[in-house]
Amino acid sequence: MKIEVCLTPALIDLYDIEQSIVVVIDILRATSSITYGIENGAEAIIPVANVEDCLNYNDKGYLLAAERNGEVVVGYDFGNSPFSYTKEKVGGKTVVLTTTNGTKALHLANKRASQVLIGSFLNLDALCDYLKVQDKNVLLLCAGWKDQFNLEDTLFAGAVVSKLRQYFEHFDDSSVAAEDLYGIAKNDLRKYLNKSSHSHRLAQLNIEEDVVFCLQLNICQAIPVLEGDRLVKLAV
Amino acid sequence: MKIEVCLTPALIDLYDIEQSIVVVIDILRATSSITYGIENGAEAIIPVANVEDCLNYNDKGYLLAAERNGEVVVGYDFGNSPFSYTKEKVGGKTVVLTTTNGTKALHLANKRASQVLIGSFLNLDALCDYLKVQDKNVLLLCAGWKDQFNLEDTLFAGAVVSKLRQYFEHFDDSSVAAEDLYGIAKNDLRKYLNKSSHSHRLAQLNIEEDVVFCLQLNICQAIPVLEGDRLVKLAV
Repeated sequence: MKIEVCLTPALIDLYDIEQSIVVVIDILRATSSITYGIENGAEAIIPVANVEDCLNYNDKGYLLAAERNGEVVVGYDFGNSPFSYTKEKVGGKTVVLTTTNGTKALHLANKRASQVLIGSFLNLDALCDYLKVQDKNVLLLCAGWKDQFNLEDTLFAGAVVSKLRQYFEHFDDSSVAAEDLYGIAKNDLRKYLNKSSHSHRLAQLNIEEDVVFCLQLNICQAIPVLEGDRLVKLAV
Repeated sequence: MKIEVCLTPALIDLYDIEQSIVVVIDILRATSSITYGIENGAEAIIPVANVEDCLNYNDKGYLLAAERNGEVVVGYDFGNSPFSYTKEKVGGKTVVLTTTNGTKALHLANKRASQVLIGSFLNLDALCDYLKVQDKNVLLLCAGWKDQFNLEDTLFAGAVVSKLRQYFEHFDDSSVAAEDLYGIAKNDLRKYLNKSSHSHRLAQLNIEEDVVFCLQLNICQAIPVLEGDRLVKLAV
């Protein structure tokens, strides 16, 4: 079995994923918030491509979440800050979510993969425990930033490769690179990400608390899985 | 001024390179051999996209070089082994060359960039000495392997970033990653590349001598530059 890392959604067509599990990764902040929301009892999170698509769910009693370029879109309940995905706010609710990068990656994966899961540092161990016993190829799909490579998603992919190395045989060059970068960064992920361009973008948005939150390891057990067009809690 | 690393040709459209110098990188083996050939007095090397295009130059007294999937195409004078680009073989000659990845990357860059140069470990310092005084943005374009990320091209990009860090202000996430990977690998590039998928491919082709040759630092002063459709020696 093999693990590969797709460094940006723009490269997804290079991978044969019909029989694979695809893990979508958008650490800052979509897949961290989705993990946290499902952990906190959200019934489902529906990823949609466009802000306009969110509005189609307007009269169904759903929470509407929309983020573009790191900010909550005016008029929406919230965006993709993990602090909006607490028990109090999303427990028992369905959230309709659109984000700059994460939801696009989800839709690309959903077209072709055998199974689509959500990964984040928050559920790293739970995710790896699941993947290592599935006997399936794994593609770690980094959402990146507008089709560009980014560090934080690559570091998480590297964390997964590092955890799963003993259970898989084949690794592509990008998984080797991701694992080695994680090796450099793992003792202080926040400090390492100061090197990243996205970090500067985020600093301007004044969401340092979000960044620190999203870099916590293993505070969640839930693995969100795409069923049809809805992300729900995987039964394990 | 900024340095960016385009990790595969499939991502080139994400970069605004009209005013930039683009350095094309295909360490194993096209840009190493091109550097060595120009260093050794080849009058010009003409990169062409297809094997068939080589044949258009059949009756002009040029040397015809064609490589696909790591092997010399049957009927051609040679492929992209650096040992075919010695003084004796290419001095004073024009070579028409097509390769799996390198020539494709060259043509993509040539459509839009301000200037297109050839980089390899063989001319690392000469290249960096030139780039640091040009007052232009630099894009390091990794040729990769069939649009996939590869380690050896990324390591070279990282070597350039490392050399030029003090002369530039802005670095994208992929240049940060490339530099850090080079930091891990630089003390024994050959050993590090044992981790790579391409390394296994190359082992099967029995070209270990080529790999070792292409990882030598600074044995050349020449910087090949694209002028029209021909790579010639840059006048510095």
